[in-house]
Amino acid sequence: MRAVNALIVERMHSPVALIPQLAGHIVAAGGKRLRPMLTLASAQLCGYEGQRHLALATCVEFIHTATLLHDDVVDESDLRRGLATANALFGNKASVLVGDFLFSRAFQLMVADGSLEVLRILSDASAIIAEGEVHQLLTSNDTTTTEEAYLEVISSKTAALFAAACRIGAVVAERPETDAEALDRFGRSLGIAFQLVDDVLDFSARQAELGKSVGDDFREGKITLPVVLAFARGNEEERTFWRRCLEDLEQRAGDLEQAIALMTKHNALEESMERARNYGRDACEALDGFADSPIKSALLEAVEFSIDRAY
Amino acid sequence: MRAVNALIVERMHSPVALIPQLAGHIVAAGGKRLRPMLTLASAQLCGYEGQRHLALATCVEFIHTATLLHDDVVDESDLRRGLATANALFGNKASVLVGDFLFSRAFQLMVADGSLEVLRILSDASAIIAEGEVHQLLTSNDTTTTEEAYLEVISSKTAALFAAACRIGAVVAERPETDAEALDRFGRSLGIAFQLVDDVLDFSARQAELGKSVGDDFREGKITLPVVLAFARGNEEERTFWRRCLEDLEQRAGDLEQAIALMTKHNALEESMERARNYGRDACEALDGFADSPIKSALLEAVEFSIDRAY
Repeated sequence: MRAVNALIVERMHSPVALIPQLAGHIVAAGGKRLRPMLTLASAQLCGYEGQRHLALATCVEFIHTATLLHDDVVDESDLRRGLATANALFGNKASVLVGDFLFSRAFQLMVADGSLEVLRILSDASAIIAEGEVHQLLTSNDTTTTEEAYLEVISSKTAALFAAACRIGAVVAERPETDAEALDRFGRSLGIAFQLVDDVLDFSARQAELGKSVGDDFREGKITLPVVLAFARGNEEERTFWRRCLEDLEQRAGDLEQAIALMTKHNALEESMERARNYGRDACEALDGFADSPIKSALLEAVEFSIDRAY
Repeated sequence: MRAVNALIVERMHSPVALIPQLAGHIVAAGGKRLRPMLTLASAQLCGYEGQRHLALATCVEFIHTATLLHDDVVDESDLRRGLATANALFGNKASVLVGDFLFSRAFQLMVADGSLEVLRILSDASAIIAEGEVHQLLTSNDTTTTEEAYLEVISSKTAALFAAACRIGAVVAERPETDAEALDRFGRSLGIAFQLVDDVLDFSARQAELGKSVGDDFREGKITLPVVLAFARGNEEERTFWRRCLEDLEQRAGDLEQAIALMTKHNALEESMERARNYGRDACEALDGFADSPIKSALLEAVEFSIDRAY
């Protein structure tokens, strides 16, 4: 990861100073570097001993960072509702353009690597992520969103890049397609579990303990699984509450607490975690074909960590 | 172009309905399709007889459309100044995400084409465009911008894609690098001429005749060549006027007319057109090595048209 971190800093350079400045701000804040780590670990699991995985892990992080920057873009309506984001510092336009730069830079790095297979995997993942983000935009504020639609959104916007990050490891190691598929499945299931936990944490006291704000999704009217389950099980009075808060975005003091109380009443947070644990188990099973090794243990621990951070 | 138009519609399809809806809105409004036409004409000039140029012309148009969508993104400050854009219909976030989708789709099309050389050309162009757009953001509202900085901005944000669109024609035809370089130079010079004329038109009565609004750049505080020249030649009182209008964005009734009067006084519009004609001549010269043919005449006419639309 030290080599990848050095590459990230080196390759985000541009004579236009705002680019490394803004990108650096996000890369520094991003912190976890989970996705590039998955590329490195997958390559190692496949016995890869070359250097190509370093630049490709950097691509994965650049695509992720571009997505974060573009996610920071806000609409006038968000501003009216007082939603501030990291882009408050730089503005919408800068977030978009620096994101575009990182995205293009990721493709330059892939071209330099020279594998059409890797280019296919990451351009497919990028198109799916964009589709998922648009789909999420459409389900925002829509309390009739189904569990199925929610799973489609997170499979696209989160799990597709996790899957691609892992699959690349098998590709650089020139392993057969069965290994590539196993790693793809590992990444996809881990990504879904990861996003489910993220969505639960937004309503959890644990999030506050971690120093992050609680209720961001609620304030934006994002429809996540805990909301879908609580709404489906709610009576007419409760549904009126959800519609007022999430569709009309008319929120008052005490509404977030009321939302959490309704989720608890309907067991929505615990059941969402149960779904996350199921996907986590599927991720672990996906690696059954790989012999035990320290790197395999590390990947299994990454699954455990992704779920346990909820507690 | 009929085949390219059909491909554009087919490949912007997505199960997420907002994507073809929004992209179609821009593609329909874009109209001229100058860039993909350059790819087709360049390939034909190089004697290419296959089908690959169709998908690659579509890539070029998708990258251009993504840039337009991302250009539509506005900041709170723009909204305060009452600048409406096409994105008023759909919002910032939708413009960003659908742009990302088209950009990814362009790379998927290139991967399907399978040429690493084409991928290199268009990923390099994309990174340069993003850099140029960030650079433009930084020179916005800065009356000390030099002619050199202005030329750097338009070389990156406009001419790089024109150059790439033309170069691709030589690549699919497998012509020697000298032909690729000649077409690159043709596209680059044409792109600079094209942008110079665009920037002059923003202050021209001709623009009003074409049914487009005059003074958009002025209202945004964009620093284009006519402004750079008029500012450099202005006295202290005139410079105070430019700073108030473009740096402080304090604009009153009659300011646009005053700006045009100052440009006329200092011959700034006519000299900007003179620069455009010089770049146009360079574009034509770049094709000297190609034998006369109907398609070469069409390319030379494209240069003439790009400049003559100012009159």
